[in-house]
Amino acid sequence: MDDKSSVVPAGTTVHSATPLPRHWRVSADRRQTYDVLVAEPLLGGLNHALLRGGSVPGRRLVVIDGGIPAAWRVRIRAYFKSHGVVIRLVVVPGGEAFKNTDSVLQLIQAFDDFELDRRNEPLIAIGGGAVLDTVGLAASLYRRGVPYIRVPSTLLAYVDASIGIKTGVNFGSSKNLIGTFAAPLSVLLDRAFLRSLPHREISSGLGEILKLALACDGELFAALEEGADQFRSAQFSDEGGFRLLAQAISVMLGELEPDMFEDNLYRSVDLGHTFSQPFELLVGPAAMRHGEAVALDLHLSAIISHNRGILDTASLRRLACLTRRLGLPTTFPEIQAESLWRSVTERTRHRAGRQRIPLPTRVGGHTFIDDLRPDEVAEALSILRASPSV
Amino acid sequence: MDDKSSVVPAGTTVHSATPLPRHWRVSADRRQTYDVLVAEPLLGGLNHALLRGGSVPGRRLVVIDGGIPAAWRVRIRAYFKSHGVVIRLVVVPGGEAFKNTDSVLQLIQAFDDFELDRRNEPLIAIGGGAVLDTVGLAASLYRRGVPYIRVPSTLLAYVDASIGIKTGVNFGSSKNLIGTFAAPLSVLLDRAFLRSLPHREISSGLGEILKLALACDGELFAALEEGADQFRSAQFSDEGGFRLLAQAISVMLGELEPDMFEDNLYRSVDLGHTFSQPFELLVGPAAMRHGEAVALDLHLSAIISHNRGILDTASLRRLACLTRRLGLPTTFPEIQAESLWRSVTERTRHRAGRQRIPLPTRVGGHTFIDDLRPDEVAEALSILRASPSV
Repeated sequence: MDDKSSVVPAGTTVHSATPLPRHWRVSADRRQTYDVLVAEPLLGGLNHALLRGGSVPGRRLVVIDGGIPAAWRVRIRAYFKSHGVVIRLVVVPGGEAFKNTDSVLQLIQAFDDFELDRRNEPLIAIGGGAVLDTVGLAASLYRRGVPYIRVPSTLLAYVDASIGIKTGVNFGSSKNLIGTFAAPLSVLLDRAFLRSLPHREISSGLGEILKLALACDGELFAALEEGADQFRSAQFSDEGGFRLLAQAISVMLGELEPDMFEDNLYRSVDLGHTFSQPFELLVGPAAMRHGEAVALDLHLSAIISHNRGILDTASLRRLACLTRRLGLPTTFPEIQAESLWRSVTERTRHRAGRQRIPLPTRVGGHTFIDDLRPDEVAEALSILRASPSV
Repeated sequence: MDDKSSVVPAGTTVHSATPLPRHWRVSADRRQTYDVLVAEPLLGGLNHALLRGGSVPGRRLVVIDGGIPAAWRVRIRAYFKSHGVVIRLVVVPGGEAFKNTDSVLQLIQAFDDFELDRRNEPLIAIGGGAVLDTVGLAASLYRRGVPYIRVPSTLLAYVDASIGIKTGVNFGSSKNLIGTFAAPLSVLLDRAFLRSLPHREISSGLGEILKLALACDGELFAALEEGADQFRSAQFSDEGGFRLLAQAISVMLGELEPDMFEDNLYRSVDLGHTFSQPFELLVGPAAMRHGEAVALDLHLSAIISHNRGILDTASLRRLACLTRRLGLPTTFPEIQAESLWRSVTERTRHRAGRQRIPLPTRVGGHTFIDDLRPDEVAEALSILRASPSV
């Protein structure tokens, strides 16, 4: 990390013979640089990516998502042992329920029990988005930040949660209400994790890629259309899968890059996240994965855009068709328009008092509106309910 | 805040006709600028410093230290009312016991109950170091950071805790183990808060100024010697007090400035914080204030330096004499050399495996050592115990 800071007395006043400063302006500049790296095979003997930033031989604390097949743990132990690195492996439950402040404090306690060094023992987090977000937050708080490496094990984390600099946990009924901006040391990508994912998990990840494509990149959308069936069956183990992931990451980083700290609250990548929270909070058999909720949100957003005369009918149909082919829902359980509107209100607060809602203008394009009305949401909901294929 | 970020594919490999990126390097630059401002009288009708960064008329959440005389609350309400700003005043207990993760979560709950806007309703924290550190942490976590204004009400906070960018709370038996770097919107200084402080609190704050003077600035040390009695009796309400505080802040910011994010762990301002933790953790009648513990640490550090032939006897005597005149302790309760050594060990871990202990070389100068031995600590302790005036 490079810092460049300055402090200048910004004004002085003469109180006596010598002027005394009454005002200091302090600037603190920080550059955080990190690598997003395809590192396959991650546990190959000659691959040193996981050892980066720490001493070898040495020690590491590895936090791993309990959702990852247990065979990985054996291989992880063997990998580090072969490099003379002693590890403590902490297995945590994955999923949204883990993403809370208790988990953060338990992780910090584990760091402290390990007597983690502030600089020379990068934490390693391997898991889905919930685990990466939670471990990232704990790492950014412990001693005001220790280095950490992210290894996404789900498709959603691979193309979304892991490659930016956001960390966070849920609080009350709000998602990610508590968090930090904290760049990892590196993000290490290995598609081997994706091969054992349930089909529904693959579809959920495809939902985030679909969002990115619809909002920002027509070519990515076309690539999804072209390979939809193959992506689902090969689970990205082939050349075409590799290509799609590389494309999605490039588009995503390109969108994040001009504004890593969200000084601008008009964010293209917020498409699909206007109405999604109430869908995600459903429990029991109606419970939805994140990418599934995003897909429903995309449809509602597209219908609203269409009703406003912005999005044309052909694009709306293309979206509906691709959504089905990706294994994403177009039907959904009973939900009230009021709860969707509450989600809009919450997002508005998160966006400092203006709606700043992204709507698709075409396949690969978006605009922002600040004047969405509750009746538009209710109308879109009834259209989607009546005709899931739009 | 200004951001400048970039993402470049850092390498490509030819897997097929079109090269596909396998490596992205992402840079996130952030500039945080803030003002440290003498804003007297803070609650004067024409002083708009407290209103900065938010809408007027509007709302504010004000967190105030319960240790501040209640009359201030009445005046604060009147000030905001006169500007058409509705406030919610949250009174919290001050002191070290408040500085914990429960307090952080309770504050975040209060922010959420208030439905705090992410950008346009800067939080205002008025209090001693514990309150400012804790509110600062909560502010930096809520929605990944909301703007906040710091108003120090103790001398220690005035010259130390409030003017940098560190936030934090204690965890287990470690001080500030959890925290962030988060610049406030501004730091507003009004000496009126200092006038009602107990004498012992004034001396504690002078302990931090003494540390800064001994480590970094002979002129500041001389100013302390010249005005010691006056600072204690007038409690900084006069011109000389104003001058000393301005000088201390300038020196402090000058030390912090080159390395706001502590990339370099050799820090001059860590002088006095090598052995201080065990003194601060004493309870009951032996309980000590932070600046008192720092003063004892300064002496131990000075004796060690003297024993190594670095610090001359005259400087050691000057320190002892000034310490007494500032009302700071030179005697102390029973404490084991072992617990001082554990403090060294903990600091070493915080400084990434090397001691990096600052020692005074002269009045206004310091060096760093990495090879302190337990027997040196035990010897310094017995010298200080036997002859408190050295």
